[in-house]
Amino acid sequence: MTRFALTLEFDGGPFMGLQRQAHGPSIQQAVEEAASAITGEVVTMHAAGRTDAGVHALGMVAHIDVAKPIAPFRLMEALNAWLRPKPIAVLACEVMPEDWHARFSCTGRAYEYRILNRRAPLTLAKGQAWQMPKPLDAGAMDRAAQVLVGTHDFTTFRSTHCQARSPLKTLDRLAARREGEYVVIEASARSFLHHQVRSMVGCLALVGIGRWDDARVADALAARDRQRLGLNAPPDGLYFLRATYSSGVEHTELA
Amino acid sequence: MTRFALTLEFDGGPFMGLQRQAHGPSIQQAVEEAASAITGEVVTMHAAGRTDAGVHALGMVAHIDVAKPIAPFRLMEALNAWLRPKPIAVLACEVMPEDWHARFSCTGRAYEYRILNRRAPLTLAKGQAWQMPKPLDAGAMDRAAQVLVGTHDFTTFRSTHCQARSPLKTLDRLAARREGEYVVIEASARSFLHHQVRSMVGCLALVGIGRWDDARVADALAARDRQRLGLNAPPDGLYFLRATYSSGVEHTELA
Repeated sequence: MTRFALTLEFDGGPFMGLQRQAHGPSIQQAVEEAASAITGEVVTMHAAGRTDAGVHALGMVAHIDVAKPIAPFRLMEALNAWLRPKPIAVLACEVMPEDWHARFSCTGRAYEYRILNRRAPLTLAKGQAWQMPKPLDAGAMDRAAQVLVGTHDFTTFRSTHCQARSPLKTLDRLAARREGEYVVIEASARSFLHHQVRSMVGCLALVGIGRWDDARVADALAARDRQRLGLNAPPDGLYFLRATYSSGVEHTELA
Repeated sequence: MTRFALTLEFDGGPFMGLQRQAHGPSIQQAVEEAASAITGEVVTMHAAGRTDAGVHALGMVAHIDVAKPIAPFRLMEALNAWLRPKPIAVLACEVMPEDWHARFSCTGRAYEYRILNRRAPLTLAKGQAWQMPKPLDAGAMDRAAQVLVGTHDFTTFRSTHCQARSPLKTLDRLAARREGEYVVIEASARSFLHHQVRSMVGCLALVGIGRWDDARVADALAARDRQRLGLNAPPDGLYFLRATYSSGVEHTELA
């Protein structure tokens, strides 16, 4: 068996999420079916992150194991051909050691959230950004974001369906910046709780319109109570950017 | 009657083009129907450019005349509300003099063409860029573009359905640049022939992959023969960027 790491880009709009679901299409099902069609084998995909329905990826990392001898470039090309016309693309494909695991070896995950800050509705970016009509103060959002950076109990910012054993997470970076009509928020950590990025973005948006301040964000965090969450941002604006890997002296950044 | 200038952004994908068509939806029909619903009047829209099916706009300028007294901001908000969920947005709305005309007063039009230059297929940018798998030399494309700048008979770069009286046009600017995975081509002129931008982009793409050189572009131009066109680029990658207006001492740039 050869283990292949895949870097995936996808539009999450038409999918029920990354993970295989009984009730609808998923990224996992699409990639597994394409790989099975190519190899004639039953293929299982493991990914660095389990993105929700409607969440996109610019550089999701996943792996599959294949018995049939095939070069990484040929596998990538064949997967892209089989995946058409679904909005999933394999951007990179490389052979990895058998003990490397897209999810368990991953030491860093980065997300980006895009808010289109204008009154006019979305056209070309429909389903790919969150539209907020009220003017956002990106500077205030960036300052408030620093309240959340560090090791905390993120219960307030965690979906009630979250399956993680502990609500304790270390948020390495949370930054907001203006880019023209957009406010872009970047978040990176070893791992995130379910809905954590969208929950943090929702509260920062309240700061951006002046309804919340830094103290209110700190209170919400300290409360460790999901009821204290200000707002959960919709999936449309969320992008899985990249996964980082390190093992011993080696350091691999895929995507 | 009050004349309102509208700056429009739209995803051209679901439309048969900007102009009203008997056989399918158009930007013009959508805006006219929204304006009629708001005012109870029969409203006609005139636009700076007549984009084809599948061509997008980030700053198309158009005008409508309305008898009902309404403030520009309220008209814009009402149009955006009525246009939902169609991917058309009114970004700006202002009152103009009665002799100002979105099409006939326009002294400059600018387009952008986006080529996604990679092997992996389009996902999030599906319908919004032209995917070219072979590596493009943007520098060579930019140099070849200069052959086309200036006043020429653009018969080679003109659709056989073009209704313009003369094939003589002055191309003010044609520039290609690399932006990461993208090659972006900008074109500006007082006006363009039908399919002119897509025809020029098609030939520049042949230069980009090394199949054509500057001399071949010059030959094609000099031939004044549509049969000598190398390639007509698809509509997906084309964006109407902005329209420029000047009258006497005044100078207005909308969008």
